Amino acid sequence: MAAPFSWPIRVYWEDTDAGGIVFYANYLKFFERARTEWLRSMGIGQAHLGERTGGMFVVSETAVRYLRPARLDDELRVTAELTEAGRVAMTLRQQALQHAGGELLAEGTIRIGWVDAATLRPARIPPVILQTLNTR
Amino acid sequence: MAAPFSWPIRVYWEDTDAGGIVFYANYLKFFERARTEWLRSMGIGQAHLGERTGGMFVVSETAVRYLRPARLDDELRVTAELTEAGRVAMTLRQQALQHAGGELLAEGTIRIGWVDAATLRPARIPPVILQTLNTR
Amino acid sequence: MAAPFSWPIRVYWEDTDAGGIVFYANYLKFFERARTEWLRSMGIGQAHLGERTGGMFVVSETAVRYLRPARLDDELRVTAELTEAGRVAMTLRQQALQHAGGELLAEGTIRIGWVDAATLRPARIPPVILQTLNTR
Amino acid sequence: MAAPFSWPIRVYWEDTDAGGIVFYANYLKFFERARTEWLRSMGIGQAHLGERTGGMFVVSETAVRYLRPARLDDELRVTAELTEAGRVAMTLRQQALQHAGGELLAEGTIRIGWVDAATLRPARIPPVILQTLNTR
Repeated sequence: MAAPFSWPIRVYWEDTDAGGIVFYANYLKFFERARTEWLRSMGIGQAHLGERTGGMFVVSETAVRYLRPARLDDELRVTAELTEAGRVAMTLRQQALQHAGGELLAEGTIRIGWVDAATLRPARIPPVILQTLNTR
Repeated sequence: MAAPFSWPIRVYWEDTDAGGIVFYANYLKFFERARTEWLRSMGIGQAHLGERTGGMFVVSETAVRYLRPARLDDELRVTAELTEAGRVAMTLRQQALQHAGGELLAEGTIRIGWVDAATLRPARIPPVILQTLNTR
Repeated sequence: MAAPFSWPIRVYWEDTDAGGIVFYANYLKFFERARTEWLRSMGIGQAHLGERTGGMFVVSETAVRYLRPARLDDELRVTAELTEAGRVAMTLRQQALQHAGGELLAEGTIRIGWVDAATLRPARIPPVILQTLNTR
Repeated sequence: MAAPFSWPIRVYWEDTDAGGIVFYANYLKFFERARTEWLRSMGIGQAHLGERTGGMFVVSETAVRYLRPARLDDELRVTAELTEAGRVAMTLRQQALQHAGGELLAEGTIRIGWVDAATLRPARIPPVILQTLNTR
């Protein structure tokens, strides 16, 4: 089985809180950066796609477990792995790990729908995306 | 049954993204503001408590569903309701609603543990907090 | 002379960094919340105005000095004072102070222009805003 | 003259606001990432240094001009250039540019002091840092 897509992320001051560790809400940002780069690695650019189709991805559900803290200057590796792709939504499994030792820091399940950018109503994921996802 | 604790939150530019709506990760911030004020309403100040006990709350699990978008200038009402309080963790149910119409925007379950601030190892929630929570 | 407009802001975990203090970039957010409420206090709602005029405010210059640190749970008072209002830009002087003791934490000068929301090109500030500002 | 240190930064959803562009406060984050990597490129790791010396950098002044908007998916190049290094503070000039066309998006002057991490009182920058900075 192929290893899931993985993206390096460095922890900066902006990511930490007064507990001395990465603020938990920021793992959602890290997951999104990795998802964005995973899409880009398949030729899917969200800004470009938005202009062309008038739609955009919208996160509809997140479930995250925070297992170990990360700290300033840590180098993380964040994965993105498609677990389900339907006509109106896709689901990914994502993990944040220490790059050096591989310790699992946080892991989550993210469900993403497609909406019309003007009305924000749910819509079908453009075929070009579904085809790309399904041929992977 | 008593209504859950509720805290008003206004949507500013900082909370939005290029989709024109509140960035989903920011609901975790909104939920935390409401939890913090819920604790404060019971006399529990986290900064003070940290100094006195050497410990702090750490979020260990979040599960959030995003149902409707919120936009710049919207006034939200964010609730915090304790569903479980054990010796090492507590769980809350939280909702973000439109203040005016009451539409549900996002809802989540947040699990929070207590750790020693220096070692970040799990520890028992200080009795003063548990007592306060259980007498509510 | 009248006291400048002032808005209370509480420091939450999200505002702090691993130094144990408010992350300096976040004062720009605090200043903006106070500016937004200052405009709202004069009947100017930015979301509504954007829909009606097709334009929006864009910050073009910020100069901030950070004098004393703020910490988790601190209650701040953030001011907004118009120092100049021209046809294409306005300038404000803003301060963040400890609510209790009044110590000055940060102060800045913020210059804000008006742009067409679609083209992002500079445009004249709508007369309704200038009139409101100048009759204050 | 050597080109200043430069670091690539990609614009993600988290960086944008409802105006469709990068939220201006986030340029301070971009500048800090580039400064952190500039320090790291000279062998100065801030987390490690904090543990060893008990001190940390604190930003004391920022002056930024925002010239052109950046958007989702844009790839920026952010520079860091030391303009002054004294015993208690250093000053940098930083720019954010479009990677492709080189258009200048924002530029700023950032003044950074050194403080004792426990007391937050100003202190002398550790000699190891000053030596490293001055031999560049």
